[in-house]
Amino acid sequence: MTYSVAVAGASGYAGGELLRLLAEHPEFEIRTVTGHSNAGKPLIASQPHLRSLAHLTLQETTPEVLDGHDVVFFALPHGASGALTAQLTDVRLAIDCGADHRLTSESDWAAFYGGEYNEAWTYGVPELIVAGEPGAAATRQRDQLAGATRIAAPGCNASTVALSFAPGIAAGVIESHDLVTVLAVGPSGAGKAAHTHLLGAELMGTANPYAVGGTHRHIPEIQQALRGAGASETPTLSFTPVLVPMSRGILATSTARIAPGTTAAEVRAAWEAAYADETFVHLLPAGEFPRTADTIGANTCLMGIAIDEAAGRVVVVAAVDNLAKGTAGAAIQSANIALGIPEATGLTVNGVAP
Amino acid sequence: MTYSVAVAGASGYAGGELLRLLAEHPEFEIRTVTGHSNAGKPLIASQPHLRSLAHLTLQETTPEVLDGHDVVFFALPHGASGALTAQLTDVRLAIDCGADHRLTSESDWAAFYGGEYNEAWTYGVPELIVAGEPGAAATRQRDQLAGATRIAAPGCNASTVALSFAPGIAAGVIESHDLVTVLAVGPSGAGKAAHTHLLGAELMGTANPYAVGGTHRHIPEIQQALRGAGASETPTLSFTPVLVPMSRGILATSTARIAPGTTAAEVRAAWEAAYADETFVHLLPAGEFPRTADTIGANTCLMGIAIDEAAGRVVVVAAVDNLAKGTAGAAIQSANIALGIPEATGLTVNGVAP
Amino acid sequence: MTYSVAVAGASGYAGGELLRLLAEHPEFEIRTVTGHSNAGKPLIASQPHLRSLAHLTLQETTPEVLDGHDVVFFALPHGASGALTAQLTDVRLAIDCGADHRLTSESDWAAFYGGEYNEAWTYGVPELIVAGEPGAAATRQRDQLAGATRIAAPGCNASTVALSFAPGIAAGVIESHDLVTVLAVGPSGAGKAAHTHLLGAELMGTANPYAVGGTHRHIPEIQQALRGAGASETPTLSFTPVLVPMSRGILATSTARIAPGTTAAEVRAAWEAAYADETFVHLLPAGEFPRTADTIGANTCLMGIAIDEAAGRVVVVAAVDNLAKGTAGAAIQSANIALGIPEATGLTVNGVAP
Amino acid sequence: MTYSVAVAGASGYAGGELLRLLAEHPEFEIRTVTGHSNAGKPLIASQPHLRSLAHLTLQETTPEVLDGHDVVFFALPHGASGALTAQLTDVRLAIDCGADHRLTSESDWAAFYGGEYNEAWTYGVPELIVAGEPGAAATRQRDQLAGATRIAAPGCNASTVALSFAPGIAAGVIESHDLVTVLAVGPSGAGKAAHTHLLGAELMGTANPYAVGGTHRHIPEIQQALRGAGASETPTLSFTPVLVPMSRGILATSTARIAPGTTAAEVRAAWEAAYADETFVHLLPAGEFPRTADTIGANTCLMGIAIDEAAGRVVVVAAVDNLAKGTAGAAIQSANIALGIPEATGLTVNGVAP
Repeated sequence: MTYSVAVAGASGYAGGELLRLLAEHPEFEIRTVTGHSNAGKPLIASQPHLRSLAHLTLQETTPEVLDGHDVVFFALPHGASGALTAQLTDVRLAIDCGADHRLTSESDWAAFYGGEYNEAWTYGVPELIVAGEPGAAATRQRDQLAGATRIAAPGCNASTVALSFAPGIAAGVIESHDLVTVLAVGPSGAGKAAHTHLLGAELMGTANPYAVGGTHRHIPEIQQALRGAGASETPTLSFTPVLVPMSRGILATSTARIAPGTTAAEVRAAWEAAYADETFVHLLPAGEFPRTADTIGANTCLMGIAIDEAAGRVVVVAAVDNLAKGTAGAAIQSANIALGIPEATGLTVNGVAP
Repeated sequence: MTYSVAVAGASGYAGGELLRLLAEHPEFEIRTVTGHSNAGKPLIASQPHLRSLAHLTLQETTPEVLDGHDVVFFALPHGASGALTAQLTDVRLAIDCGADHRLTSESDWAAFYGGEYNEAWTYGVPELIVAGEPGAAATRQRDQLAGATRIAAPGCNASTVALSFAPGIAAGVIESHDLVTVLAVGPSGAGKAAHTHLLGAELMGTANPYAVGGTHRHIPEIQQALRGAGASETPTLSFTPVLVPMSRGILATSTARIAPGTTAAEVRAAWEAAYADETFVHLLPAGEFPRTADTIGANTCLMGIAIDEAAGRVVVVAAVDNLAKGTAGAAIQSANIALGIPEATGLTVNGVAP
Repeated sequence: MTYSVAVAGASGYAGGELLRLLAEHPEFEIRTVTGHSNAGKPLIASQPHLRSLAHLTLQETTPEVLDGHDVVFFALPHGASGALTAQLTDVRLAIDCGADHRLTSESDWAAFYGGEYNEAWTYGVPELIVAGEPGAAATRQRDQLAGATRIAAPGCNASTVALSFAPGIAAGVIESHDLVTVLAVGPSGAGKAAHTHLLGAELMGTANPYAVGGTHRHIPEIQQALRGAGASETPTLSFTPVLVPMSRGILATSTARIAPGTTAAEVRAAWEAAYADETFVHLLPAGEFPRTADTIGANTCLMGIAIDEAAGRVVVVAAVDNLAKGTAGAAIQSANIALGIPEATGLTVNGVAP
Repeated sequence: MTYSVAVAGASGYAGGELLRLLAEHPEFEIRTVTGHSNAGKPLIASQPHLRSLAHLTLQETTPEVLDGHDVVFFALPHGASGALTAQLTDVRLAIDCGADHRLTSESDWAAFYGGEYNEAWTYGVPELIVAGEPGAAATRQRDQLAGATRIAAPGCNASTVALSFAPGIAAGVIESHDLVTVLAVGPSGAGKAAHTHLLGAELMGTANPYAVGGTHRHIPEIQQALRGAGASETPTLSFTPVLVPMSRGILATSTARIAPGTTAAEVRAAWEAAYADETFVHLLPAGEFPRTADTIGANTCLMGIAIDEAAGRVVVVAAVDNLAKGTAGAAIQSANIALGIPEATGLTVNGVAP
């Protein structure tokens, strides 16, 4: 069947990527697009690369406009979707690409975001390992997504890091405290609002750190995911993002201490087992590491791991397209699962490179 | 007085940067430039930005050509300078920008480089803290450089990371094991030889890790420097470099565990004390972190630190121009010290930005 | 039906883009990939972004390997395909993405390429206007492509410029002499062979002209196309390409003198009429001009025109992805036409932006 | 002697480059810096690369603050300096890097800028050829700058293009109508104000044209300069700028029809004669063309010319750093001349590359 779809926040970067992917999806029909300051204007004025959607006009982002669609994707600034989604009465599946419904801890929300807390929705990272009850086998997050009606798409950095650490934590081959991640990330993740520090002249030819020292909002989201994967207590994580001169992409270098008594083969085996059957998360052969270029436009997370015995740490390097697998692709993959559509529908594993 | 200068390896990136800086230096006169495959050609054919040196022709890189100069800078591939420098008979000051004379451990050389070992020369990082004998105050590396006749300029990544950790190690406010560094670095550090993986199309718009898992050659150099700064034993370091799309620059994010019982103020004080009087290493105010753009062309290392109490780690972010402060600037600064010229002569603290 | 396909030169940039597009094409089955120095290795070692083709191994590029496929795409260096294609005995449709079969003039070939001349094949730019015999209406190049068995895919710069000027020449609203084009182009068009001048450090942060002064090999191809579009004599064209720091993309700024007595409205009408019904060439509204970002990965040529009455010139700005619409997309679009498959099959109009 | 200097608009890009150069200038002492919205803040908060100026605080941009300095540089948005400079009573030398005092034609000002017209000041392009009265030899613009008290620094694009065409026009070897220029330019020329179309994500990996079709404000300035160089009537010029992903730099490709009966040698000789004795404008040998990288941070304009006999056009490719030779360097060079300081003082010919 064909599902009617609305995209709220269609004039931004995440909204644009949702539409690019939805335009190729055989089961979704884009019926409505909304935008705040651009309401009334053609979508293509904001998204000149979406030539096949030249017929669409941006409408106001209101519950009335959005209600009545089978599926609504929200690509709004953090804090903007919570009040809106609460007013929906006739939407089968709502997927929030913003942060409003990601955190299960109200105190984490207060500490890292502030403003009104909204309850957490089903987390949209299908490949994430979910520890079972004592004695039961681990499952995947996709099991919880099947049949879901409200989904929180992940933060792009958060899901990349969670997928990087989860196999080792679930298998007990790494320690779950003293994790360290440094990310190289392109500025499209920061959105389309005009700020001086995001100007091209400020970003080209330079690497610029931000949110240094434990203040990035994706930290509690990562911790929450890793607790779900089996960390016995909330992991400690040093997390530093660095803006680098590429419009898209995340390269996350994540390291963890190898658990005492664990062999290198056991470490590698944990990641191999975790992703051997996954369509969209690929562990590269030993000695190979991914480049973000190879994931651009794709729903793929490429991962390479090294065991540094001298340092006593495993190094996991993961590459994703922050807008695709990091945001819009994850949202559509999750929607596919929720609706019973084959999980890979409308998504590609092949990147646009070079 | 004016010192006669030769630069060996003048057609490469490090050689070009040496010449750019030397051309403005009031005490040095560039008399000879040498290049391997380009010998006999005008320098400017290899270095079209060095307009003031259009009169120079590249000569062969031989001991005969180099001998007789007051100062010779070597900017040759690793392994190429050792045999050459051994044959010099009449050079007051030789400075090697390659790795051949950096490591004091022959086994480290064998493990990370291979080929014939050459004895270590005085290490060219003037600001580096050097622990004193028991009971004696710490000194700086510049004290050893005064009057030196043979100097090993540092690896660009190595000096950046050593400067990042040394204050904390020397002051005992961080643990010297389980260090973690991830660097964003531009490809000029990889040299001018043509390799497919360094093509523009392979590097633009993407972040590409390399030497993952403890294999990078700068690791033993960092460990050596940190032992010198007072680490009680050889530090363990997880070190991952990532090529990002900027021609120059290193942004090193380095983290270490805060020593038990140490306050945040004590941690910050260690770095403040270390660099308060330095011309070329600047600690930014609390909450500020550097961008590589601000160091381009300058001999400046900009540093910011954060104390992440939740993670139990200090995060040190350091930015340098890999060719300037990372290589050629460090070499000239060290040469100034060795010759008794004021240390900052011919060097600038101001970057070319944006 | 499904056509069996081979790609010769599958380890390069054009080969990679052909495969990326073919992998999504419902009527083509990629059966064979060949590569010169990489024969025997997995395709994915050369093309790590093509995750869905991880099962393919590169074979030698020989007639024996290629014969027997329904369709063979050649993505070889110029001069390499001519001898090879002459030996094929059992290939229904051969499409050469190199230059060997583009030029109808043996003397142009000798002047701009040299080496053995190969006869011209049907030119693969479907939207190109083809002037009719005297008294007959103009047609499009796609009419000649229908049923073709040998197709020369265009040079990426050449087709972009030909499409930019053809409407004006065909309609007689511009003069066909004294054309001027300056192109900004990314380095992927220069191929994957390692050359110093194509290193990332040589290309990032800089604009580098090449082939200045009428020496670029695409000039005779453009002239040939414009003669076909109705230029009364061979047009004169000043053509200057400039490498800029983006891996993909061509932005061609082309200007021509407005024919005496022609109004601005008549000029614009010529381009509007030419492309109003085209799927893959879009004329933007008056006052809007394209960006290459909006065409990345797409088979789209975006075009904007301005009439500069003070200068007496029309300015046509055209954006394409050099690897997609410029090369691989044009090849597949032409193959679709030749085989009677709907022209847009397996191709998208939407770019990957930002 | 030492001149006291103020820089108005010190928080922007042009202001920053002025300060970077002034900081190294032995005859100028930076005493005052002003900024609009940043008044009261440390300069270094806006210009974190200017480490040697960490002691300066931004003041309000008022006549009172600026009066009393020997030299005042204005780096304000167009339209902002005119009213301000009119109120100065005690400034020996004022140099406006904005457009307010560039145009001698009030109608050109009205057509391209609008707002109140301010009288033109002495144009700050020292190397520009100025045609003599009938029978008299040509001079240079530097002759008019000697002793000047009010100087209009040029538009960065305008001076680059004027220097490109002037030798041919002055020598009569090219036609002065039907000129065509296409420029690749980095976004720092567009200033530091936050606009969506200047965001990093909008500019990386893409070439974006703007002001297409004869609307760019530098067109009348170029025409004015070329009339001064001897064009018999106002030249017609098709001018198209293209933003490309580099923070700094202009690569201008300019073409003109070769005058009938002129030989290639005569054409080249015109440019050679024009710049043979210039310190900051270098004509490259035949067959060589410049890259913007080689001019970064330098006061150098590198130029290459080709005679395309088939097209009947000369092609002049000129590279400059838009902020240095294009703006701040030109201003300081002109100030040197005006004050009788050696022209090259405080400026370098060597670029920062790669």
